[in-house]
Amino acid sequence: MDISLKDLSKQLEGKMEVQDRSMDISLKDLSKQLEDFAKVRNWEKYHSPRNLLLAMVGEVGELSEIFQWRGEVDKGLSNWEESDKEHLGEELSDVLLYLIRLADICGIDLADAAAKKIIKNSIKYPEPKVFEEMF
Amino acid sequence: MDISLKDLSKQLEGKMEVQDRSMDISLKDLSKQLEDFAKVRNWEKYHSPRNLLLAMVGEVGELSEIFQWRGEVDKGLSNWEESDKEHLGEELSDVLLYLIRLADICGIDLADAAAKKIIKNSIKYPEPKVFEEMF
Amino acid sequence: MDISLKDLSKQLEGKMEVQDRSMDISLKDLSKQLEDFAKVRNWEKYHSPRNLLLAMVGEVGELSEIFQWRGEVDKGLSNWEESDKEHLGEELSDVLLYLIRLADICGIDLADAAAKKIIKNSIKYPEPKVFEEMF
Amino acid sequence: MDISLKDLSKQLEGKMEVQDRSMDISLKDLSKQLEDFAKVRNWEKYHSPRNLLLAMVGEVGELSEIFQWRGEVDKGLSNWEESDKEHLGEELSDVLLYLIRLADICGIDLADAAAKKIIKNSIKYPEPKVFEEMF
Repeated sequence: MDISLKDLSKQLEGKMEVQDRSMDISLKDLSKQLEDFAKVRNWEKYHSPRNLLLAMVGEVGELSEIFQWRGEVDKGLSNWEESDKEHLGEELSDVLLYLIRLADICGIDLADAAAKKIIKNSIKYPEPKVFEEMF
Repeated sequence: MDISLKDLSKQLEGKMEVQDRSMDISLKDLSKQLEDFAKVRNWEKYHSPRNLLLAMVGEVGELSEIFQWRGEVDKGLSNWEESDKEHLGEELSDVLLYLIRLADICGIDLADAAAKKIIKNSIKYPEPKVFEEMF
Repeated sequence: MDISLKDLSKQLEGKMEVQDRSMDISLKDLSKQLEDFAKVRNWEKYHSPRNLLLAMVGEVGELSEIFQWRGEVDKGLSNWEESDKEHLGEELSDVLLYLIRLADICGIDLADAAAKKIIKNSIKYPEPKVFEEMF
Repeated sequence: MDISLKDLSKQLEGKMEVQDRSMDISLKDLSKQLEDFAKVRNWEKYHSPRNLLLAMVGEVGELSEIFQWRGEVDKGLSNWEESDKEHLGEELSDVLLYLIRLADICGIDLADAAAKKIIKNSIKYPEPKVFEEMF
């Protein structure tokens, strides 16, 4: 059996609508978007490794300020205002975007490095054996 | 004009082989892996928002240490040892993994937040018009 | 009435013994010690502003690591091991020493700047009036 | 030989005028001022160790922002605007003040810890011997 490209295209469209609702994005997508963003604005000259690192530290500071006077905070931030959560999402994103850009400018494949680091961590901290748990 | 699915499939196969060599990973994939990692090791009790934030600040410190005595560093790190680049990849990953975990524990959809932040940035810093550039 | 220098000297000696027990140190003393430390070791070439800033961020990371998995911590650290407190004192000192050195290398008089900042803060956040407190 | 207190007093006055021009301040002075500042404003309830630590990280971020897009910066900041230097003095002070307050709230004697850390560093990194330097 074979189907035509036009039929397939119709089927894919259906899938894409579903995907849109629960958006996801890859590290490489973000990296590419940030590269284009800098290129179009002629910002590449500012994007040296240590400039980007300090910019990221600046964003880590802004992220910390959101948490600084709150004492301990519960998972899910149940009693936060919606506007505070939105602000938090922005600061988390700022750290992420500078981090991805820093990796890219340094020639580091962050997706690859992260996958390897998870494997390394799982060797360093092995899963507890069921046997050990039981006795 | 139309082409058959089998022809298309063959073309895609070629592309996929290339893609496989340059691995990619999505934020949601990483988030899920980190959740499983913590669950299996019974670490969820340690993963409060401020604990994770401070752990991330710790990793930002380790990342900074790599750059601290080097003076300015060129893009691509052309004269770095391979082992230093690997170390850098690990520290970048550590920041990334705690950042993703922090977002997740706070109930923030980081993929969604990052996509929105890029749009917000592109409005705040509009592309220079070609006309403006030319004159 | 007048007293002789020898009498005064005796009185001062008594005071100094007390002072010795509760040591204090000035910002300028520390700055001078750090300058000498770097000069003798021929480290001045490494002490550029951004190198020192990143070294300080590294120490802030080590300081954060001490607090990262503890949840909220009480004032006075009542249930901490003596060795943990000593470690904390060292990391706080590392941040302080790089901060003082950074200010010095930038030609900033930190003692003067800190005194001015306290005054500025006291204007920004004025003392609540007793009247307001009472009614 | 002995001199009267009045003579001595006159001599000290002369010295003090000189001292006034180049102000200095001790860690304990600053610690005391910050304690009073918080007490009068009823802020002590916010000054838990981790709150203060995160506030300090926030200020480290603001400090980093001053340096983020400048590339390497020369000692003495020779080509900086006076207003930028003043801003830098303020951010350095903010880090210092939260650091001192954090130490105080944790019951750490920062003056003592810093003095010990310098001694520890001088043992870890001994002065190069003149002999070694010469041959």
